[in-house]
Amino acid sequence: MNSHPEHQLKVKNIGIDTYRENIVYCRADCHICLCEGFKALTRIVVHYNGRNIVATLNVVHSELLSQGEAGLSMEAMKRLEVKDGDWVRLSHLKQIDSLSHVRAKMYHKELEERDFNEIITDVVAGRYSNIELAAFISACSGDNLSLSEITGLTKAMIATGQKIKWQNAMILDKHCVGGLPGNRTTPIVVSIVSAAGLTIPKTSSRAITSPAGTADTMETMAPVNLGLDEIKRVIAEENGCIVWGGAVKLSPADDILISVEKSLDVDSEGQMIASVLSKKAAAGVTHVVIDIPVGETAKVRSTIKAKQLQSHFEAVGKQIGLQVKVILTDGSQPVGKGIGPSLEAMDVLSVLRNQKDAPQDLKERAIILSGALLELSGKYAVGAGNNVATEILKNGKALTKFQSICESQGGFKEPKYAKYMHKIFSEKEGVVKSIDNRKLARMAKLAGAPQSPSAGILFLSPLGKKVTKGEVLFTVYAEAKGELEYAIDYMKDNNIIYIN
Amino acid sequence: MNSHPEHQLKVKNIGIDTYRENIVYCRADCHICLCEGFKALTRIVVHYNGRNIVATLNVVHSELLSQGEAGLSMEAMKRLEVKDGDWVRLSHLKQIDSLSHVRAKMYHKELEERDFNEIITDVVAGRYSNIELAAFISACSGDNLSLSEITGLTKAMIATGQKIKWQNAMILDKHCVGGLPGNRTTPIVVSIVSAAGLTIPKTSSRAITSPAGTADTMETMAPVNLGLDEIKRVIAEENGCIVWGGAVKLSPADDILISVEKSLDVDSEGQMIASVLSKKAAAGVTHVVIDIPVGETAKVRSTIKAKQLQSHFEAVGKQIGLQVKVILTDGSQPVGKGIGPSLEAMDVLSVLRNQKDAPQDLKERAIILSGALLELSGKYAVGAGNNVATEILKNGKALTKFQSICESQGGFKEPKYAKYMHKIFSEKEGVVKSIDNRKLARMAKLAGAPQSPSAGILFLSPLGKKVTKGEVLFTVYAEAKGELEYAIDYMKDNNIIYIN
Repeated sequence: MNSHPEHQLKVKNIGIDTYRENIVYCRADCHICLCEGFKALTRIVVHYNGRNIVATLNVVHSELLSQGEAGLSMEAMKRLEVKDGDWVRLSHLKQIDSLSHVRAKMYHKELEERDFNEIITDVVAGRYSNIELAAFISACSGDNLSLSEITGLTKAMIATGQKIKWQNAMILDKHCVGGLPGNRTTPIVVSIVSAAGLTIPKTSSRAITSPAGTADTMETMAPVNLGLDEIKRVIAEENGCIVWGGAVKLSPADDILISVEKSLDVDSEGQMIASVLSKKAAAGVTHVVIDIPVGETAKVRSTIKAKQLQSHFEAVGKQIGLQVKVILTDGSQPVGKGIGPSLEAMDVLSVLRNQKDAPQDLKERAIILSGALLELSGKYAVGAGNNVATEILKNGKALTKFQSICESQGGFKEPKYAKYMHKIFSEKEGVVKSIDNRKLARMAKLAGAPQSPSAGILFLSPLGKKVTKGEVLFTVYAEAKGELEYAIDYMKDNNIIYIN
Repeated sequence: MNSHPEHQLKVKNIGIDTYRENIVYCRADCHICLCEGFKALTRIVVHYNGRNIVATLNVVHSELLSQGEAGLSMEAMKRLEVKDGDWVRLSHLKQIDSLSHVRAKMYHKELEERDFNEIITDVVAGRYSNIELAAFISACSGDNLSLSEITGLTKAMIATGQKIKWQNAMILDKHCVGGLPGNRTTPIVVSIVSAAGLTIPKTSSRAITSPAGTADTMETMAPVNLGLDEIKRVIAEENGCIVWGGAVKLSPADDILISVEKSLDVDSEGQMIASVLSKKAAAGVTHVVIDIPVGETAKVRSTIKAKQLQSHFEAVGKQIGLQVKVILTDGSQPVGKGIGPSLEAMDVLSVLRNQKDAPQDLKERAIILSGALLELSGKYAVGAGNNVATEILKNGKALTKFQSICESQGGFKEPKYAKYMHKIFSEKEGVVKSIDNRKLARMAKLAGAPQSPSAGILFLSPLGKKVTKGEVLFTVYAEAKGELEYAIDYMKDNNIIYIN
């Protein structure tokens, strides 16, 4: 470490959001650029006030920066806790030792738990570039991780995050591996299970690449941005909650890895298991039911894959002391009618309210998952779960519990329809033969979901339905005219529903 | 494709060099950011004048951009051929089909030549993000490519670049896989071989991560930035040249892949072979000698690895109709005394001039490689090459040829010493036991090489040398005082030469 004054640069806040990557912007004529060269995505250490981060160098050839100034991406400023005008010092990067494990993994070496610990510690500290993260994810992708490696990775991810402690000995949870639009069972399951007297503190995510996460949907009905103390108060009052998990940093490694993973669109079984189970363990969960929708355009595409995933989920759960029950469900088409936060919330409410037009598929899934949780808890006999869950839903206790949870989280409100809509009509008569879930989700996103909570798709043409020419297949909702057009434009190039 | 006016944005040149990555900078309140969201490193298509590129979205939260403006990284502007004030259109990215091959490779599927063709075509078109490039490189790293895959990748890389045609039927070349500071045999080999009447149009690279490339070294003695027509004129006049290969886009895929590869510091045998041989084939070469230095801190660390590499180089060469001869050389320590463009040039000249103090190791290596080329050509008997080469060097024909080549390239000049220097003395008496080539190279770079051509290291303590306390081990040269201090500072934390 040196302290030549010429290595000090004044931070200018240039307000560039590079997502999670640390970037340091330097003038082409600054000392660091001249010394380090800029031929191979140079990585540099930026120091401030005893802290440091590793950042990738971008070189500025304009007057964006003055002599003696450096810019930092918003993520880098946040990590380093610097503000405009602070002085930072730059130094060359000594090697990141844990990358040797990544390279070893590329050569198919079996990694130990402590290797994963070193890697994940560096990842959490922001020392990996996106390129290095991509290399790690690729090396671990596919079936490249053994069961003991998945366990090692899971433990490493638990070790680098916080862990929540609860009063109760038994803490339930549910999780869906995703990929199925409208599969919004969580608010119903939490209501049923907590109404049955069991504890289920559900922390959900916001959408990353989907048109709605459970937190987005729930937010159209009640506040979800609760801190840990508030979550604990809600649980003490109601046994259940449906809140956003982001305020509680359960698995910071996962938040970083997932961003690169999503952009590669690669199914990495090991990382998915480690991601899900590490978050559950960190949340203090003891029993979890995992919903794996299986279908051609869902995340898991075949029953063989799903069964392998099931067995690995349960085996790794055992290794980390977590009771895991996996349920394979139909993933061939969207669940319910709504795709997008508000539209999905309407489905949820219609099930809880026992409305006649409530989507039966959503209701049935919620009952199956609730039943499984009730049985897994050991408080209800095997085989009795579904009946108990059905009764709690039918007699209105689930609705009452949901309303109490909403009040405890800050107050209930009704979800709303968006201002703009456009109906998509069938161009022919026939039967709905297949549905591309991914494209349907993409279209809902282009319409503005989840940033515009009432945007999305009201889906009216499930598989096997007979449709006449001119019948409405689905309706696109948007909060702005431009977004509506953007979504419709996407429709033109893409076949989403196949009728014959 | 749509043409809503709101999708048109005016380009502002913000002068940010992101190296090879296409980045599009948009305001947080612009339509595209709102529609696409910005949670997962969104990739967007930018259209201009019938061309398009794929770029990663960065979001601007400052007044760097005004309403209706978009910024592009310098690479993106160059690729799209836009300038400040042009109007571009943005659209969502339909999937990049060739990424499915990358994912298949992650699952250890053997790829076909046409799969590589699709991947490399997209890479050359700039459609891959750095994350996607890293995934491809990782999937192909280590020993993950079979011989037929390496051949397929090599052919794909040849197919996507230009190919040079020559008058002569036989075109010679030499290549060193690198990793050894000061190993600057090329100017000597080219001089000997062309003096022997054979054709050797040597296009060399500039340094990427090393303190000097052959082009950098040659540039301290003669111009090297020659276009293809000028290269052909020099060859017509002299049979040989030593020029920078960058002006001739021989393997554009390689230029892109190599940037990410270097930053991962991963030895990918398949990609190295494809990279080297595709460039040779594209350059119209028919016979090539490849120098593989083997040593603990060289690129290839063991004889076993080197022999495997040798056999693969020769096998792939055969598949693409290229005569390849691989020579394994000692890679345990720097070659000659100079590390850095000018200092290496001085070594080259002292060998060509038959000076008494000329580095014998450099001279011997140059003779061995020249001899191998002479024999490979079939014009000289096997076993006679080294004697012929030695004679051409000794009788001054090589020097005369080198001077003629320099004149033909634009004129010879003497390389110079840098203004600032610092001697590193031995702290004890003993024998030089080991040398860290990588750290020595790093130090030369920190001193300013190759951007400052006369910066670098004059290395005076080869393996086995007896040194006394206070004897000079090496001298650091720099063109600026700051750079000298920066390099010396690095020395403090690092053991480069071990004496006992």
